[in-house]
Amino acid sequence: MSIPETYQRIVLAERPRGPVKPENFRLETVPVPSLAAGELLIRNHYLSLDPYMRGRMSAAKSYANSQQLDDTMIGGTVGQVIASRNDFYQVGDYVNGMLGWAEMGVSDGLLLRKLDTTRIPLSAFLGVVGMPGMAAWYGFNQIMEAAAGETVVVSAASGAVGSVVGQLARLRGCRVVGIAGGPEKCGYVVDELGFDACVDYKAGNLEADLAAATPDGVDAIFENVGGACLDVALARTNAFARIALCGLIAGYNGADMPIKNARVLLINRLTVRGFIVTEHMEFWQQGLQELAVLVANRQIKYRESVADGLAAAPEAFMGLLQGRNFGKQLVKLI
Amino acid sequence: MSIPETYQRIVLAERPRGPVKPENFRLETVPVPSLAAGELLIRNHYLSLDPYMRGRMSAAKSYANSQQLDDTMIGGTVGQVIASRNDFYQVGDYVNGMLGWAEMGVSDGLLLRKLDTTRIPLSAFLGVVGMPGMAAWYGFNQIMEAAAGETVVVSAASGAVGSVVGQLARLRGCRVVGIAGGPEKCGYVVDELGFDACVDYKAGNLEADLAAATPDGVDAIFENVGGACLDVALARTNAFARIALCGLIAGYNGADMPIKNARVLLINRLTVRGFIVTEHMEFWQQGLQELAVLVANRQIKYRESVADGLAAAPEAFMGLLQGRNFGKQLVKLI
Repeated sequence: MSIPETYQRIVLAERPRGPVKPENFRLETVPVPSLAAGELLIRNHYLSLDPYMRGRMSAAKSYANSQQLDDTMIGGTVGQVIASRNDFYQVGDYVNGMLGWAEMGVSDGLLLRKLDTTRIPLSAFLGVVGMPGMAAWYGFNQIMEAAAGETVVVSAASGAVGSVVGQLARLRGCRVVGIAGGPEKCGYVVDELGFDACVDYKAGNLEADLAAATPDGVDAIFENVGGACLDVALARTNAFARIALCGLIAGYNGADMPIKNARVLLINRLTVRGFIVTEHMEFWQQGLQELAVLVANRQIKYRESVADGLAAAPEAFMGLLQGRNFGKQLVKLI
Repeated sequence: MSIPETYQRIVLAERPRGPVKPENFRLETVPVPSLAAGELLIRNHYLSLDPYMRGRMSAAKSYANSQQLDDTMIGGTVGQVIASRNDFYQVGDYVNGMLGWAEMGVSDGLLLRKLDTTRIPLSAFLGVVGMPGMAAWYGFNQIMEAAAGETVVVSAASGAVGSVVGQLARLRGCRVVGIAGGPEKCGYVVDELGFDACVDYKAGNLEADLAAATPDGVDAIFENVGGACLDVALARTNAFARIALCGLIAGYNGADMPIKNARVLLINRLTVRGFIVTEHMEFWQQGLQELAVLVANRQIKYRESVADGLAAAPEAFMGLLQGRNFGKQLVKLI
């Protein structure tokens, strides 16, 4: 394969105050570095866009270090090795890594994962068989621990994480109720993904609609959104319900995100646990293998929103924070 | 012992709207019933007043059934058997039960506990060696799981539950910071109970004072109060902190009790668990034995506020809800 002399990347130009704006980013052209011994050069095929990136853009304390100004925006990638001075990686290998918002990246290989794309498409390793799928798997199996017959509520139900949570819960024999924005997403969640019901939070009747969809109350919640979605789900909980707190996208633009009534945590003896799936790597091998089998057997379906070309990434990311994506948000780079 | 013909009791006359008022209660004189086979008659020496009673007075769903109107107010008691048609209980035995706001009570013995008062005063079985002590023991050992060197925050630190949590944490080798109302309670918490520090929430500087008292952050919280106490403690948490939610007395008078910023639950990967200690009876034998040994050896100290006579119970209960008690609130009946 021919090695270009330059590639494009997007850096953090300034930290957002309030909503993310295009001027927070800057597209740059930089030279392709030469490889040291042990290094390899990867051409990224897809970039993953994920809500956690919003937290990294702020200087405020988050669950990880802040993204540095003028550095390549952080992000998961899948791509192909195009040059290698590393014995384990050959030119042509497909790999998953965290090479950021960039057309190419150099790695010493230690934090890469070699991918078997014979039964699973390359892009799925950024979604259902990657970090979002593992977030779903971990929250469902290690926090929600929902049994057959229990009722599970999943917010952002058509998204990369929520869609997997709901399908894992269906396979377990739970009653699964999604929350999503708009009739198209809700229809997909029920008709394609097999949820028992999906409540449209944009329809203006969230509390009554969720109550109607959960006649036996709620035993476990997978929370991606926060705000009203979380408040109404908490109000429907049965005793000893478990809440996996994976994201609070409704509050990512900076305002405080209250829980309206903490009393329900006590009255219903709830357990709420926030988690970051990359801190539980001991489960990844098991989880990714299970997810890969389910995807290969088409027992778990997924959907992607694909933006075209690196320059489209900022706009696609702003759309993701506003729920304009439909399924896993990717940027196709090649 | 002579058996009187009548005794006094206090019933729920009406459910409170907002703060509890004297007219919510009614003092009655009722006949002492004759005993059926297997029953025994107990003269109560002490009545326990506890925050959970406020929830029972409301018709709204709580973690237990509501107190019925015109029934004896629910409550834990210790007293002495004065008549018995039950082979296991002899006249003169001391017993702990849930005989309510009443000078006497009849029981079939099944839900009583016979008490050994040789080394522990009778009243302590309503506090440090009773339900409040077990709430502390369970929350500390089963939820907070604090290790030596970790920092623990306890609200209502001079109270029946908080005082035990803090002393258990000191015995474990934790750094223990209390929150209490007023310099007298804070002085007691540090000087008598041995907490490392105590923040006076009435001093108007809660956030800065708690920050100063927790230079290494907070690893575990025992929450009895809610509201600002909980918000400032959550804001000080380290990653993976555990929060045992035992009470939310700041909101018992009806208003919603928000958690100001749920984002910290996610950012710091917190676990919050509400609990009711009477649902975990499998731990009571172990816990009460441990507490009895610690009290008998004076490794755990306690303090009581004692109201005199049944008629004083409503006023004492209203004081408890406003934090006017100092230590375990009891009513002495004999």
